[in-house]
Amino acid sequence: MAIEPGIPDGVCEQCRAGRYNLCPDVRFFGTPPIDGAFANYVTIPASFAYTLPEQLSDEEGALIEPLSVGLWACRKAQLQGADRLLITGAGPVGLLAMKVALALGATQITMTDVSPQRLEVARKLGATRTVNVAKELLADAGVEADVLIECSGNQKALMDGIRSLRPAGKAIAVGMSPGEEVNVPMSFIQNREITLTGTFRYANTYADAIALVASGRIDLKPIITGHYTLEKTEQALQATRHDPANIKSVVVPK
Amino acid sequence: MAIEPGIPDGVCEQCRAGRYNLCPDVRFFGTPPIDGAFANYVTIPASFAYTLPEQLSDEEGALIEPLSVGLWACRKAQLQGADRLLITGAGPVGLLAMKVALALGATQITMTDVSPQRLEVARKLGATRTVNVAKELLADAGVEADVLIECSGNQKALMDGIRSLRPAGKAIAVGMSPGEEVNVPMSFIQNREITLTGTFRYANTYADAIALVASGRIDLKPIITGHYTLEKTEQALQATRHDPANIKSVVVPK
Amino acid sequence: MAIEPGIPDGVCEQCRAGRYNLCPDVRFFGTPPIDGAFANYVTIPASFAYTLPEQLSDEEGALIEPLSVGLWACRKAQLQGADRLLITGAGPVGLLAMKVALALGATQITMTDVSPQRLEVARKLGATRTVNVAKELLADAGVEADVLIECSGNQKALMDGIRSLRPAGKAIAVGMSPGEEVNVPMSFIQNREITLTGTFRYANTYADAIALVASGRIDLKPIITGHYTLEKTEQALQATRHDPANIKSVVVPK
Amino acid sequence: MAIEPGIPDGVCEQCRAGRYNLCPDVRFFGTPPIDGAFANYVTIPASFAYTLPEQLSDEEGALIEPLSVGLWACRKAQLQGADRLLITGAGPVGLLAMKVALALGATQITMTDVSPQRLEVARKLGATRTVNVAKELLADAGVEADVLIECSGNQKALMDGIRSLRPAGKAIAVGMSPGEEVNVPMSFIQNREITLTGTFRYANTYADAIALVASGRIDLKPIITGHYTLEKTEQALQATRHDPANIKSVVVPK
Repeated sequence: MAIEPGIPDGVCEQCRAGRYNLCPDVRFFGTPPIDGAFANYVTIPASFAYTLPEQLSDEEGALIEPLSVGLWACRKAQLQGADRLLITGAGPVGLLAMKVALALGATQITMTDVSPQRLEVARKLGATRTVNVAKELLADAGVEADVLIECSGNQKALMDGIRSLRPAGKAIAVGMSPGEEVNVPMSFIQNREITLTGTFRYANTYADAIALVASGRIDLKPIITGHYTLEKTEQALQATRHDPANIKSVVVPK
Repeated sequence: MAIEPGIPDGVCEQCRAGRYNLCPDVRFFGTPPIDGAFANYVTIPASFAYTLPEQLSDEEGALIEPLSVGLWACRKAQLQGADRLLITGAGPVGLLAMKVALALGATQITMTDVSPQRLEVARKLGATRTVNVAKELLADAGVEADVLIECSGNQKALMDGIRSLRPAGKAIAVGMSPGEEVNVPMSFIQNREITLTGTFRYANTYADAIALVASGRIDLKPIITGHYTLEKTEQALQATRHDPANIKSVVVPK
Repeated sequence: MAIEPGIPDGVCEQCRAGRYNLCPDVRFFGTPPIDGAFANYVTIPASFAYTLPEQLSDEEGALIEPLSVGLWACRKAQLQGADRLLITGAGPVGLLAMKVALALGATQITMTDVSPQRLEVARKLGATRTVNVAKELLADAGVEADVLIECSGNQKALMDGIRSLRPAGKAIAVGMSPGEEVNVPMSFIQNREITLTGTFRYANTYADAIALVASGRIDLKPIITGHYTLEKTEQALQATRHDPANIKSVVVPK
Repeated sequence: MAIEPGIPDGVCEQCRAGRYNLCPDVRFFGTPPIDGAFANYVTIPASFAYTLPEQLSDEEGALIEPLSVGLWACRKAQLQGADRLLITGAGPVGLLAMKVALALGATQITMTDVSPQRLEVARKLGATRTVNVAKELLADAGVEADVLIECSGNQKALMDGIRSLRPAGKAIAVGMSPGEEVNVPMSFIQNREITLTGTFRYANTYADAIALVASGRIDLKPIITGHYTLEKTEQALQATRHDPANIKSVVVPK
């Protein structure tokens, strides 16, 4: 069973328009005042609980949530096959966005990060090119992308990433903005008619994310790099902070 | 006859995709090294010269160009009827964007400017509300819009305008950016999944802009506030700078 | 108050995707086993009851339902301003679709019917051209449209209407199909990449339909041609059958 | 080198809108009065000749044309990942459409045909399910698809295929219609708001089709089942007619 952790009201203008992630009355696990879901049992409406097909383990089921973040980013980008992507930030979200983009027919994916270990992981998981932006300016790398998926929350990554876009390119900001306000290359956006948007969680992604894994299109196993029992949740949360090669920890009930 | 002043190459990737305004080899009157069109005769391919229906005067034909800018902005906004717009900047482009939006079924149009005269003109031409941002903060005005069309090129107008958008709102930057880089309210864009884009000239708008005027949907006459002969072109260009109530000057051959 | 008569479940795949009109569990007034709404009181969830602004009378409020049908058809057609429409069938739905299309910037609207009286009404309400298909073949009329809105439920109207579409045109079938299966000009659809779809009720239209009337964009008064008390509902339903110039009857509580 | 065989005029309304496949003045090899391209040399504008990357052989280059047909069909279907497709007709076009759909993240592809050999090939190339419609009614197979790609040109395949679509499903008619007019399940199309369209050649697909092959997303080699010299062109054209397991013959210059 995988659970979709945000329960919208189902009746407001946003919900009725299909954008239930923007429902002002959504109740989301882990967003105050709602507690998180590190518990043996939580209650959730049946329509937000997804039975996993037998091909998926519960651990993989736990990753449907971050995978949804990646799928949502790709949907915002309206991939159409043979897309050239730049993904800035090779953490779990960036890597999962990459896995989705590859599954949806992207042919070039450049990933950037400042950690050589993370970039190594990115290459193993399918990145066609990596740029260590601690050592090389993205502008010097000569990247030309149709789509930017910004997953680092870094101001410079967003700025340089947008400047790597081709005419009519799309920039999708997934990483949490470093501040309320950030600088963007506005003249560039105008001259190339770039579209910039951001993602807030996801909508209508769970069944599809599960299908992508169940069909073998996306392999989640290499993403899971740690296993912890519920008692060791704190450790699980810390694990990825100390080791850049550690991607996603999974907490199991027992 | 109205002439579309940018001639693309017709064969590049952008042209073939229907985005000929983004053609890297476009030749545009008045953009160096191409001279402007203040001349008795210019040469242009037949397919970019539009015969005017009898309902349109040559003077109105001359305004099809700026009207195209407004139409293109509205198309980027994907108006769908009953839209609530905020248009920042009540100069000629803002007013023409407003005229298009009204013709396309917008039901609320708030216009902002710092000139009381321009706002007066905006009200006469159909704005349902005006806000003088020299006297009142836009944030205090309680505007909630589906679409922002930014026509002032002012940093604060873009920032405050975006903050007036509803979830899934669209911001279209038409006014020339005040600098290569500008600040935008990134957290707001992400949390509401706002889409921000810019316009660069226009594509596939001329025939439709002419039809909107010929059918009576848009009345261009109140936009034309000055008439000059070719010899007085310089004066025509200056006219609108000194008088905020002067919207568009037209230069006639004789 | 205007009431939206279909209450979807709000949790199914269709509802969550924003297509609540396709909800398999929708409860719709007048669709068995649900009774109709010719009653002094009906119960309905608050979110499907719309308070009317003071500009609208209750009688106009009653027409928001058929107006929604017209608005939904226009949304399916993705009007973008300066559209050329062919609307086949000048009954209430055809006329209301026409009113919406005009409000959304259509510049040419050809309406067809077999009743001279209805076509006369169409012209009065804004049709730029009418064709009496009892007397003239549509094919001979030389219509070239971007969009067909088929409102007659007549096989020949659909067939000939599609053949009047320009390349990449859109055909929207609103009128109830005369049979489970009908003939369409498939080679024509393929060679011109025409898109054919149908509408089933409407979704997310009520607030916008109300705004279009409240703002004066659409005048519903000429559509209302009969007034009946609740006791005379039967007569109201018969009225339009006997008199082609009679468009919509309204039943008032007392 | 792969050549795109249709040269549009580049200036008409369709070309400028990005729909150059619908250009009324297109010159297409093999469409009278233009000869076909079975020749040692043909002349073609440089912008319609695509240099192949070293990963692609000339034989694979020759298949970019039919692959474009499949890619165009998938683009019309607006695949978004995890799509469930029904492809009717397991000939070369159906198989290539399937290869594209798999590359773009489709998770379920049901293919139908009347030839067991072709269905066998389809399974080998990735179909998740096949239905032999000579033996089993499609209606009995319980297929529920988001997208139908009709590649057989068979009336019944189109009819039954559409009836297998889920609400808001898309039907793309690629196979040549068996007649000017065909029957479609109109009530079904309306009640589910199905969209039906057809494809006419393709536009803006070549570079992307090449990239999909060059990146390894699509393997064209199993599609090529015969090799003939230019002198034996006639034989090449006959080959697939006599042997259902024979998919595509390639004619090589020498």
